Amino acid sequence: MKTALAFLLAARRCEIDDLERLALSCELVQAVSELVHQLQRERGASNVFLASDGARFGAQREAQLDASRAAEAEVRAWLDRPELGGERAGASVLGGARLFTRIALALHALDALPEVRADVAAQRCRPDAATARYSEIVGALLALVFDAADVAVDPEVSRLLVALFNLMQGKEFAGQERALGAASFAAGHPAADAVQAIQYLVEAQSQCFRRFEAFCGVEVLRQWQALQSIMPLAELERLRRVLLASGPGAPLDSARAEGWFACCSQRLDQLHEVEVALARGLGEACARKIAATRDEARNQASLLQALSAASEPRAPLEMLMGGELADEAVPARTAPGAERVEAPGAEPLGPRLGRSIVDLLHAQSQRLQAMSDELDAARAALEERKLIERAKGLLMSCRGLSEDEAYRLLRQTAMSQGRRLAEVAGATLALADVLARP
Amino acid sequence: MKTALAFLLAARRCEIDDLERLALSCELVQAVSELVHQLQRERGASNVFLASDGARFGAQREAQLDASRAAEAEVRAWLDRPELGGERAGASVLGGARLFTRIALALHALDALPEVRADVAAQRCRPDAATARYSEIVGALLALVFDAADVAVDPEVSRLLVALFNLMQGKEFAGQERALGAASFAAGHPAADAVQAIQYLVEAQSQCFRRFEAFCGVEVLRQWQALQSIMPLAELERLRRVLLASGPGAPLDSARAEGWFACCSQRLDQLHEVEVALARGLGEACARKIAATRDEARNQASLLQALSAASEPRAPLEMLMGGELADEAVPARTAPGAERVEAPGAEPLGPRLGRSIVDLLHAQSQRLQAMSDELDAARAALEERKLIERAKGLLMSCRGLSEDEAYRLLRQTAMSQGRRLAEVAGATLALADVLARP
Repeated sequence: MKTALAFLLAARRCEIDDLERLALSCELVQAVSELVHQLQRERGASNVFLASDGARFGAQREAQLDASRAAEAEVRAWLDRPELGGERAGASVLGGARLFTRIALALHALDALPEVRADVAAQRCRPDAATARYSEIVGALLALVFDAADVAVDPEVSRLLVALFNLMQGKEFAGQERALGAASFAAGHPAADAVQAIQYLVEAQSQCFRRFEAFCGVEVLRQWQALQSIMPLAELERLRRVLLASGPGAPLDSARAEGWFACCSQRLDQLHEVEVALARGLGEACARKIAATRDEARNQASLLQALSAASEPRAPLEMLMGGELADEAVPARTAPGAERVEAPGAEPLGPRLGRSIVDLLHAQSQRLQAMSDELDAARAALEERKLIERAKGLLMSCRGLSEDEAYRLLRQTAMSQGRRLAEVAGATLALADVLARP
Repeated sequence: MKTALAFLLAARRCEIDDLERLALSCELVQAVSELVHQLQRERGASNVFLASDGARFGAQREAQLDASRAAEAEVRAWLDRPELGGERAGASVLGGARLFTRIALALHALDALPEVRADVAAQRCRPDAATARYSEIVGALLALVFDAADVAVDPEVSRLLVALFNLMQGKEFAGQERALGAASFAAGHPAADAVQAIQYLVEAQSQCFRRFEAFCGVEVLRQWQALQSIMPLAELERLRRVLLASGPGAPLDSARAEGWFACCSQRLDQLHEVEVALARGLGEACARKIAATRDEARNQASLLQALSAASEPRAPLEMLMGGELADEAVPARTAPGAERVEAPGAEPLGPRLGRSIVDLLHAQSQRLQAMSDELDAARAALEERKLIERAKGLLMSCRGLSEDEAYRLLRQTAMSQGRRLAEVAGATLALADVLARP
């Protein structure tokens, strides 16, 4: 018969298990963040290559393909880990079904890469089409990071994952801004709704970076702030102003395309430096948490052992733990000693030990409660995106739109009404019944 | 190298695993609900036994002890299941650390039973003290059911668990009402704040039963409504009126104690019938879901196999699944056939199969999203209790109160201000900073 103490210790072990699975997810997130960065660079180089009819960035693009492939290989190496195969695969990651489905979607998106690259190399597609195809792949990878953040189980690590997701998402908006702006400058005039779209992307970036700042922790925040002073922000704002002031009557100077691209790229690379620091911090936070939880579990066990030795000289810790360790250490479950420990009427644990167990139980229960509250707070920062995803899903199923069409519809509505995307998504969901009507 | 398809199938397997772990939790919940019922009966019999100075219910109480012990043995048998021992214990239940901590708290509470029983047998304690000690044990068991409901992963099963928890909680309020009323009638006048407390318990019951009705499903609801017609509700309301109208100037007829007790007990037993039906439905729902998910996974695999046979005659399903099944079935990972399947540029899957995988991926992703939304909706019904638990925790840590004192303070505040307990809890939490000040 297992005792309360056995389950108290088993709960600790679960915490350690959960942290180890979280550390595994964080490794995937690190690899994915590197791959996203390389694909963003590849997208940018492909864009210039196509826009210049193959005259520029040919060599850069070739070199970039190698870097992208290396980053993809890292992600695939993670996916090939032996613990992710076989019957127990679900138990080795957090949020099994959800994360695996996201991985499947991301892998499927990545499967499109060779074809996109071939089309770019043969100059078979327009720059904006290539950008859109790369962006779809990056979107699938970002969704994976989002879900990893949403299923995380430790408040500190969750906060860092929320920060990293928002940094990556903000950087992706910056990458899309680069592409749109470069195309506009190169063409000598902004494309159809490019001005509105750039305004939206600028606003979306600042929202993401605000959330990133709220969750990234003191150290990364300091690095981020130091970086602001060397980022080409003044130049970026000047070029944005030129871009936004342009219109059918005010053509853009196409010679500025290069300056715009260089300025945006420099900023993206600097954002990536913060990303790398944050990803490293993620791994360290996991390791630190695992070590701390192991230490606490050991201290807890020693405390109980000391107390049990004091109040019951012949009761070693193994016996105290009842069924659990007894299964391994004591031949028969009904060993008289083990029985004695479990007869609470007789208080064989001794009052001090009994009291300590109660204290440990209540402390553990309150700690788990506090952790769960903090987790909820970190996850709340992910709610907006969930609203948007749900609204997209609704539009796809009720109006038969593709994912991209649904997103554009939401974004255009937000832009034209001057409302935030999440507000429009919330309003869409509130109209679910109306939309579902045939 | 693993394919998107391998992770699509792995996600399905995770869903089945999760459902199996949910089924295991449901078995615990069933055993716990039976134990709670027996302890409620034991509490009632002990109450009468002590109030009559041992003159009444002696034999009933003895018989009840056997029933209680049998129900406790069922719970302990579940806890002794081999999958709950050893290193992988955390992976065999949902919400590992949290559920195990609750189990430890419940076991610790149960450890007090022999002493309570000995005190009752020797008539060493007052009826209200015995009631309070039993209620604490029942409270720990209810908290376990609550957490099992809160960590459940299937919307349909979650709804049933939320219904069962609310039915059990409502029934426990009914049991506390029985004890308070019995003591008041027996004493010939209501105890200090018994009138207010009974008003609170009546209101709390109706809240719980409303939530139960919202989640229990059509079939149990029909049984519940049929039962209402044979429950002694008119008699109960009449006796409640007598009780609530009494005061220092209006003594109670102590001869009515028996009628009150019998009427309340009959109702509790009838509530238990619904509980049993609901618990049975829970097991059936789990089994049904597991079977359906297995079928779906099989159909999905057959569909893909059929499609792969049509578009690629020599590609069996095993090969399609890439690394995952290849590990078991194909000797070398770099088998040329397997390689071919993975080169997406060449579209070796054939357009139909490629399209099917995309459809399956999107359908699975949307289904998981819809499930998660439904789950959130079911869990929202548990939010009130979480608020109350958090407010209790805050008062305990900031004001140094015991759990019971914290609860009484919240309840008294709610009663005196005519507000709902959850409102008072919310207001308490909003004042966290003020309360935390030394």
